[in-house]
Amino acid sequence: MPTISQKGLSMPESPIRKLVPFAEEAKKRGIKVIHLNIGQPDIKTPKVALDAVKNNTLEVLEYSRTEGSEEYREKLAKYYAKYDIHVSASEIIITTGGSEALAFVMGSIMDNDDEIIIPEPFYANYNGFATAAGVKVVPVVSKIENNFALPPIEEFEKLITPKTKAILICNPGNPTGYLYSKEEIEKLAVIAKKHNLFLVADEVYREFTYEGKEHYSVLQVEGLEENAIVVDSVSKRYSMCGARIGCLVSKNKEVIKTAMKFAQARLSPPTLAQIASEAALETPQSYFDDVKVEYVSRRNLLISELEKIKDLKVAKPQGAFYCIAELPIADADHFAQWLLDSFELNGETVMVAPAAGFYATEGLGKNQIRIAYVLDKESITRAVQILKTALEVYKG
Amino acid sequence: MPTISQKGLSMPESPIRKLVPFAEEAKKRGIKVIHLNIGQPDIKTPKVALDAVKNNTLEVLEYSRTEGSEEYREKLAKYYAKYDIHVSASEIIITTGGSEALAFVMGSIMDNDDEIIIPEPFYANYNGFATAAGVKVVPVVSKIENNFALPPIEEFEKLITPKTKAILICNPGNPTGYLYSKEEIEKLAVIAKKHNLFLVADEVYREFTYEGKEHYSVLQVEGLEENAIVVDSVSKRYSMCGARIGCLVSKNKEVIKTAMKFAQARLSPPTLAQIASEAALETPQSYFDDVKVEYVSRRNLLISELEKIKDLKVAKPQGAFYCIAELPIADADHFAQWLLDSFELNGETVMVAPAAGFYATEGLGKNQIRIAYVLDKESITRAVQILKTALEVYKG
Repeated sequence: MPTISQKGLSMPESPIRKLVPFAEEAKKRGIKVIHLNIGQPDIKTPKVALDAVKNNTLEVLEYSRTEGSEEYREKLAKYYAKYDIHVSASEIIITTGGSEALAFVMGSIMDNDDEIIIPEPFYANYNGFATAAGVKVVPVVSKIENNFALPPIEEFEKLITPKTKAILICNPGNPTGYLYSKEEIEKLAVIAKKHNLFLVADEVYREFTYEGKEHYSVLQVEGLEENAIVVDSVSKRYSMCGARIGCLVSKNKEVIKTAMKFAQARLSPPTLAQIASEAALETPQSYFDDVKVEYVSRRNLLISELEKIKDLKVAKPQGAFYCIAELPIADADHFAQWLLDSFELNGETVMVAPAAGFYATEGLGKNQIRIAYVLDKESITRAVQILKTALEVYKG
Repeated sequence: MPTISQKGLSMPESPIRKLVPFAEEAKKRGIKVIHLNIGQPDIKTPKVALDAVKNNTLEVLEYSRTEGSEEYREKLAKYYAKYDIHVSASEIIITTGGSEALAFVMGSIMDNDDEIIIPEPFYANYNGFATAAGVKVVPVVSKIENNFALPPIEEFEKLITPKTKAILICNPGNPTGYLYSKEEIEKLAVIAKKHNLFLVADEVYREFTYEGKEHYSVLQVEGLEENAIVVDSVSKRYSMCGARIGCLVSKNKEVIKTAMKFAQARLSPPTLAQIASEAALETPQSYFDDVKVEYVSRRNLLISELEKIKDLKVAKPQGAFYCIAELPIADADHFAQWLLDSFELNGETVMVAPAAGFYATEGLGKNQIRIAYVLDKESITRAVQILKTALEVYKG
């Protein structure tokens, strides 16, 4: 028999993958499962984006340019300018989701056994892309007690070796909801420059910032042009996760030139989704205002309800639409499965993402869960009630 | 300054990439460039596929399942059954183009420095995916004199080492147009089984076979279930290259399980394009009949015209829509550039793909070009006339 690769064997599974069959079983038993586990918003995609696809007049669904359509990249450059990020179309490569941008970045700047420092907990798929690229993730711990703020800069410096090629952050953070301040980004910029590292920022939640706080991009740091790389996506911004359109942005010409070679191998990003994404740039500001009001009220409701649960700790998110909650239990993996296979309240239960999968350090996050607040407020209220009752039963 | 990876530096460029600026310059000078260099057909996409996208009623453009939509995979299994390929939906993973399927295959079955044997000339991007995966391509030469038939099986066996994990073929072949016979596939199956190798077949041109010849898939070989992996795509079949939908098919459960982990990291294939691809399965047979008639007449015209050129050798394709021509010149790279920057006939010139980029062995293919016959017959006639005149001028 031919054999699977060591790389394939060591590819991590999604933290919630093993829970999926239990959720399916619960549904078969007639139980309604409220999904707090995924970042698929219920928010409607802007009509302007959907209409552009419906009204397209293509007769041949052709490849686009490898780097994405010229028109779309020109308009994207204008979009960034509104956020005080000054890039040209030639500094943008359109990718198949932020995912592909991450894969291109890892391939372009890192060789086998090179190291990338990432504050943990982090978006679990960073592990997958790192494993696929043969790259080692070196975690630096951020703590729920500090709301998952940037770990002390000395903690980063301690971890830098000759193999370290980059620091990767997600800002605002999935799964933490933490929004890095301008000062924090500038601290990271200083060590990136000092040690000749790339500073890669996954900024797909740029618009989702709360309490009047503003997002500060690594591309805004003066003097960081050669080090800064942004990974971006339309998925969350316009609630069009299924488009699979993202981009890689950098002012470092060698990075763009190299990433283009990876891009050429896969020919082009999806054409129909680029039509939707280009049109989405015309989404009226009122859409975002409404969405933000909705997320803020969901967040406020979720946090205030969670805080009523005895011995539960929660980090208040300032961005994105996730939070990490620490539960008064030992094993969130077991609890999450138990919620699906042994618990219900009035015919309903909840599915949560156990947080251990968002940590690279073995043993961390075992009593934590990630909650995505992408559901309507009524569902959130019921979900927290279920969680509260479940914890009482589980501990009892 | 932070530095690019060795992997990034060694990523190959597309064989035609360096010609693109010359083509753009020619266009600026008012010269019409006839593109024989790319596999973007001018054939219309089936209306049923385009209409499905136009009539979609999605309000939230959500992620699909990681492995692609259940309905689409069920229907694809039925499509394969028509070709005597018997697979279930669970043996299919929908990918972002055949490209992503190739990347998943390489990651799932090969580690850094492992070797994959590929008959050359081969689809140039195999080099890119191999480099990205840290894998070494070991070429086995097929010859224009033999119409690029399967090289003697001893040639394969000579190249097998403990690092060899797979043999990869493209059938029918890009860039050769060669269609492997059932006997040739069975010979490959024997050595794959004997040496515990995977036999990976890129079968994206399955429908494009001529002279009454039938395609024979590696998935049809009895007893090869654990070794056979098919890479497929809707791009050429329905002239929808821009959809970026393909799939990976295997009856080897470990391969599917492992590839699924790579798939999970990138979340899902594009949703809109899956709608088009699922609908494309309803394309009436008359569409394919018409397309085949068109390609056969283009091929016949192209080959008969090329054969009139003195000292030009051409392998007659039995499938796909490419052929390799050997020119009476020393350096096709130089000639291809000269066609764009120094030649015209009645205000027109042609762009061809120099074939050296389709070989891994240094020095091979330097006097060959690949021609794609994806243009109407009038353009093909003019293009060959241009090529003929150009060769006379170039040699003179």
